[in-house]
Amino acid sequence: TPEVALKAIRNFGQKVIEYSHSAGNEPYRIKLSHYYQNIGINVDHNDIIISTGGSEAIAFAFQVCLNPGDEVIIPEPFYTNYNAFALTAGVKVVPITSDIHTGFALPPVSDFKKAITPRTKAILICNPNNPTGYLYSEDEIKQLGQLALEHDLYLLSDEVYREFCYDGHNHFSVMELEGMDEHTVLIDSVSKRYSECGVRIGALVSKNKKLIATALKFAQARLSPPSLGQVIGEASLDTPAEYFKEVYDEYILRRNLVIEGLNKIPNVLAPMPKGAFYTIISLPVDDADTFCQWLLEDFSYEGQTVMLAPASGFYATPGLGKNEVRIAYVLKSDDLKNAVKCLEEALKVYPGRTR
Amino acid sequence: TPEVALKAIRNFGQKVIEYSHSAGNEPYRIKLSHYYQNIGINVDHNDIIISTGGSEAIAFAFQVCLNPGDEVIIPEPFYTNYNAFALTAGVKVVPITSDIHTGFALPPVSDFKKAITPRTKAILICNPNNPTGYLYSEDEIKQLGQLALEHDLYLLSDEVYREFCYDGHNHFSVMELEGMDEHTVLIDSVSKRYSECGVRIGALVSKNKKLIATALKFAQARLSPPSLGQVIGEASLDTPAEYFKEVYDEYILRRNLVIEGLNKIPNVLAPMPKGAFYTIISLPVDDADTFCQWLLEDFSYEGQTVMLAPASGFYATPGLGKNEVRIAYVLKSDDLKNAVKCLEEALKVYPGRTR
Repeated sequence: TPEVALKAIRNFGQKVIEYSHSAGNEPYRIKLSHYYQNIGINVDHNDIIISTGGSEAIAFAFQVCLNPGDEVIIPEPFYTNYNAFALTAGVKVVPITSDIHTGFALPPVSDFKKAITPRTKAILICNPNNPTGYLYSEDEIKQLGQLALEHDLYLLSDEVYREFCYDGHNHFSVMELEGMDEHTVLIDSVSKRYSECGVRIGALVSKNKKLIATALKFAQARLSPPSLGQVIGEASLDTPAEYFKEVYDEYILRRNLVIEGLNKIPNVLAPMPKGAFYTIISLPVDDADTFCQWLLEDFSYEGQTVMLAPASGFYATPGLGKNEVRIAYVLKSDDLKNAVKCLEEALKVYPGRTR
Repeated sequence: TPEVALKAIRNFGQKVIEYSHSAGNEPYRIKLSHYYQNIGINVDHNDIIISTGGSEAIAFAFQVCLNPGDEVIIPEPFYTNYNAFALTAGVKVVPITSDIHTGFALPPVSDFKKAITPRTKAILICNPNNPTGYLYSEDEIKQLGQLALEHDLYLLSDEVYREFCYDGHNHFSVMELEGMDEHTVLIDSVSKRYSECGVRIGALVSKNKKLIATALKFAQARLSPPSLGQVIGEASLDTPAEYFKEVYDEYILRRNLVIEGLNKIPNVLAPMPKGAFYTIISLPVDDADTFCQWLLEDFSYEGQTVMLAPASGFYATPGLGKNEVRIAYVLKSDDLKNAVKCLEEALKVYPGRTR
C-alpha cells in the first residue's frame, strides 16, 4: 500500500463517518476520471460508479447487462468468483476454452460465434488475465469489439491488473475501442494496483448513460461504498511513479525466476505470462487435485512442502484442467526458489506421475 | 461517531491493507459476540458474518433463506430498500398493513396467517421500526416466533436501531426466543448505533449453522468486508456508556418536542414513537406526494420551507399512505421547532387541505 494512502487515513479528520453519494464521492470520481484520461480512456466522473471492490462492479455489470436466463460468454480458465456473481444474477456462463499451448491467447473468434445464441447478451474478459497471466493484444480486443458490435452484445472487461503488463507490452482497454460506447463496460479495483485488497473499492465504468443510470439504482439500494476506502482510493491516485517501478521490477524478477525454474523441470509446461502475477502450468500428473492434496498431506522436502491451486476450478467445462495448476508469484524470490525446487522433488516421487 | 473509533483509524498501523476473513476478522467477531452476550443474545463468533453494511446482511438473508419465487411477509409501511434486495433475490414481498391508530403495532397474527402460502419462507421485521418508530413488545415477538415455528418459516429481524428505545421500554430480540435457533436471523449494523453510516459494516447473525455456512459462500464470492470499517467497528465496541446517554437524551428531547408540536396542529396525528428516530404521521391533505412537492416548490414561511418524505413509498400496497409522511427527528432542536411551525403554517394555506 502506498505511503500516501496510509497517510491519508492516519490524517482522517471527519467527526462523523457519513454515507457518501451512492456513486461515490464526486471529487474522487473526478480525480479518477483524470487517471483514466491519462491512460487513453476518455471518461468523465458521470461515467463512473464507485463500487465496494471489483466484486460489486462485476455483480452490478451482470445485474444491469443481463436478465435472468441470459448468457455471458467467458474464455476459460477464468476467475472462479465470476460463477458466484452469475449464479446470483441468474445468468448462465458459457465458457470458450483457451489453450495452454498458445499461452491462453484469445480463442478464435469462430469459437465465440458458435457459442452465441439468442440469449447471449455479453462477453466478459479479464485483461491481463487471472488466472492465466495472458495479456490480450490490441488486435484481439478489436476482434472482440467487432464481434460485440455485430451481435449487439456488451463487452465487459475486468482490468484490475492493468498496471501489471510486462516486457514492454502495452495494455489496450476495451474503453479505447471506437464507436463502442454503448457496448463497453470496464470493471476496475484499487486492490491489486495499490495492494489495497482490504479497502473494498472498485469501479464500474461505461459511457453508456442508460447502463450507468440503471447501475446507480442498484448502488442506491446498498446506500454507499465505504467512506474510508474512498479516502484511501482518492489519495492513492497520487502514488508516485517510483512505487510502481519498484513493484514492477520485483514482479519481473519473480516471474522470470519462477517460469524459468518450472520449465527446467521435465515435462512441466509453464507459459510466460505477459501480465498480472499468475500463470497456469501443466504437470505430468494423473490428477492435479489429487496431487495438490498429496503435496499437503504426504510430501515434504527439507521440512517444507508447496501449496498449489488445482486449475480444474477455473474451468467451467467438466474434465478440463485436470493436469494443470495455478501459480501465483506473490512470494519473495527466495521462497519462490524453494517452492520450485520443492515441486521438482515432489514430481520425482509422486505415485501418480504420468510421464 | 465515538472518539474511540476515530482514534483507532488515526492510529491505523498496518502497512498493507489486506483482505480480511470473508466472515470478518475473528477478533472483531469474538468481541462482537461479547457485546451480544451482554445484551442477552447468546451467540459466539461462529454465528456471525460481518457484512458490508446492514444492506449486505439483508441481501444475504434473502439469498440464503429464500429461493427465487418464494415469498417474504413484511409489515408495512417498511424500509423501501427491502424491495430492492427482494427484487435482486427474485423474492416476492407480501405486505401486512399496520395501522397509524395503534401507533403501527404488530398487525394481528390472523392477518399473517391469511397471507401465508406454500411459497412463504420468511417473515421480516424491523425492530425498532424504520419508518414508524414502533418498538415491538416481547409478547409480539413471541407471537411471531410461535407463528414462524408452526409454519416452519425464518424470522428475520433488522435490529439496527436497537440502542434507540425510549421511555424505559426494553428491546426484545428475536434471538432471545427459546427453541428458535434454526429459525431466527438477526440483521445488524454499526451505522446508526455509532453514527458510522459510511464505514459500511454490518452483521448477519444466526445460530442456524447451515444457514451461516451458506451465507459464508456468498461472503466468499465478494472476498471480504471493508478492513478499515472493521477497525472502526471493533474499536466502537469500547464506546463509553456516556456517549449513548448523551445521544439518548438528545433524541428524547427532539422526539418529545416534535411529536407534541405536531399533535397540536389541527387534524394532524403523530403517534409517539418508542424507538429509532422516525415516525409516520397523517396530515389533513389530499395527497402527501403533491403536498411535499408543493412545500418545496410553492411555499415558504419566513424564507424557509420543510422537506418531508411522502409515506406512500413505504407501503407495498398501492394507494396506502396517501395522507401520511415520514418524519426523521435528526435535526437540532431549534431547527425541528422551526420545521414544525413551518408545517403548521403550510397546512393553513395548502390548497389541497381536506379538513
